[in-house]
Amino acid sequence: MTMLSRRTVLAAVLALGLFGGAVVDVRAADPDPLPSWNDGPTKQSILDFVAAVTKEGGPDYVAPAERIATFDNDGTLWIEQPIYNQFAFAIDRVKATSNQHPEWKTKEPFASILKGDLKGLAASGEKGMLEIVAATHSGMTTADFNKTVKEWLATAKHPRFKVLYTDLVYQPMIELLDYLRANGFKTFIVSGGGVEFMRAFADKTYGIPPEQVIGSSGATEYQMWDASPVLIKMPKVLFVDDGPGKPEGIDHFIGRRPIFAFGNSNGDKEMLVDGGGRRLALHGPRLPYRRRARICLRPGGRAA
Amino acid sequence: MTMLSRRTVLAAVLALGLFGGAVVDVRAADPDPLPSWNDGPTKQSILDFVAAVTKEGGPDYVAPAERIATFDNDGTLWIEQPIYNQFAFAIDRVKATSNQHPEWKTKEPFASILKGDLKGLAASGEKGMLEIVAATHSGMTTADFNKTVKEWLATAKHPRFKVLYTDLVYQPMIELLDYLRANGFKTFIVSGGGVEFMRAFADKTYGIPPEQVIGSSGATEYQMWDASPVLIKMPKVLFVDDGPGKPEGIDHFIGRRPIFAFGNSNGDKEMLVDGGGRRLALHGPRLPYRRRARICLRPGGRAA
Repeated sequence: MTMLSRRTVLAAVLALGLFGGAVVDVRAADPDPLPSWNDGPTKQSILDFVAAVTKEGGPDYVAPAERIATFDNDGTLWIEQPIYNQFAFAIDRVKATSNQHPEWKTKEPFASILKGDLKGLAASGEKGMLEIVAATHSGMTTADFNKTVKEWLATAKHPRFKVLYTDLVYQPMIELLDYLRANGFKTFIVSGGGVEFMRAFADKTYGIPPEQVIGSSGATEYQMWDASPVLIKMPKVLFVDDGPGKPEGIDHFIGRRPIFAFGNSNGDKEMLVDGGGRRLALHGPRLPYRRRARICLRPGGRAA
Repeated sequence: MTMLSRRTVLAAVLALGLFGGAVVDVRAADPDPLPSWNDGPTKQSILDFVAAVTKEGGPDYVAPAERIATFDNDGTLWIEQPIYNQFAFAIDRVKATSNQHPEWKTKEPFASILKGDLKGLAASGEKGMLEIVAATHSGMTTADFNKTVKEWLATAKHPRFKVLYTDLVYQPMIELLDYLRANGFKTFIVSGGGVEFMRAFADKTYGIPPEQVIGSSGATEYQMWDASPVLIKMPKVLFVDDGPGKPEGIDHFIGRRPIFAFGNSNGDKEMLVDGGGRRLALHGPRLPYRRRARICLRPGGRAA
């Protein structure tokens, strides 16, 4: 085929697409609901599953109220590298509030953050991480915390991609959320991340309202300030929504089992365990787990 | 007016009602959404509030997603006399399982229950009540507990009214729940009662699905039994959804503030405190509280 004839064919195709009524009608009636997903067994398993549970009178039909879908967040809906985004927020909060904490200059793990010594920070381990989260996620009202998170999300840039963190979501997963909701599913986040942190962006970014976000949480304390009620975030862990905490959190918050679950790490293993009935559990590439379904995603792009 | 002429007028009115198109149309288009409520300031405050927050472009308009309504359960949606229904369930469970606990014959407060000594039971106080709840609400899977509650609700009769407990709901409140939902509200239960106990009947009885029921809860533990995952109810309190626990629970589960709240006791005080914006808080007759709105209800009937 010469260059000219290729162009001719292309023009004909474009004309068909633009003006050919029949072609346009077919596309409008049955567009691919998951255009960013590679064709293959994983995509097909999703399409088959949704068709089966929504087919009234079929053997696998599930009433809309029972169509509960749960999604991990970090590494599943948005990126989790080089560190959890919420931990990047905590580090930025240490820097932003250090003038109120002169003792941090000599106290680890805060001193390492203020010196920009990420090696020293890493050496503080999980204990250091918890100290940083406690120091930056308590002692304020829930309303003030929400405001601080929203300001950070509106301005802070990812160190590698130089865009807002809420732009680093997986396009294929956004399509999947939309597709499930269009088929009567109620979509929930079930993540180890802080529930208040996630609620600050989940509605706008994923279309998931606050009451459908389940996460780890600290205790709050009800107080009256100038005759107005406030809730103070306390430095006390109430609930860790990770590993076995995920099915516990699902039971605690939702009170019924999801029929669709999606995660990407060991912390999602228990959420993904099958409990009978037609059910689909999927996860990203790193989970060393029997019911494996490899899906490689990259931010904002097509499944790789 | 003579009797005859009264009858004539009545017949004419009936005829109008039955055959007069204009009269019938008006009634069909705008029926009273709260027929079991007495006309008066409380009913009017509800109608005015709902009209105001649903009027698009109006000064008090609230988007549907923010139309969160929270209701206490015991004494608000169903009866709470002579004892909390859930406590009646716990007492029945002590009797039903006493053959597995020979030590209960001599151990209070169980011995009093088994002897039918309600005075001795009352003397055990709050500590005794917590022991009874712990003994009857833990040590089984969440699925088994749910089954036990459903069996009890399907068979146990209230000592005075001799009907199922789920028949002892307040008709005016059922109408109010329906009316709010018809106007785009999402209705939640926020109660000191056990969350799993309430979820066993809230959907069928009130039209409130499990994920919109907030209550007190115990910890659960994830275990694998014969390669199947189960959640075991543990004798450890996780969260007390009463008093200041109600706004804390609302923040924890819903993540936004209700614009409509309804309770009947001191345990609802904090939930009912106004936090700015157009908002309606109502409660039954016994709350010694400034924003009082007296509504006298009786089971299954019209507001008294």
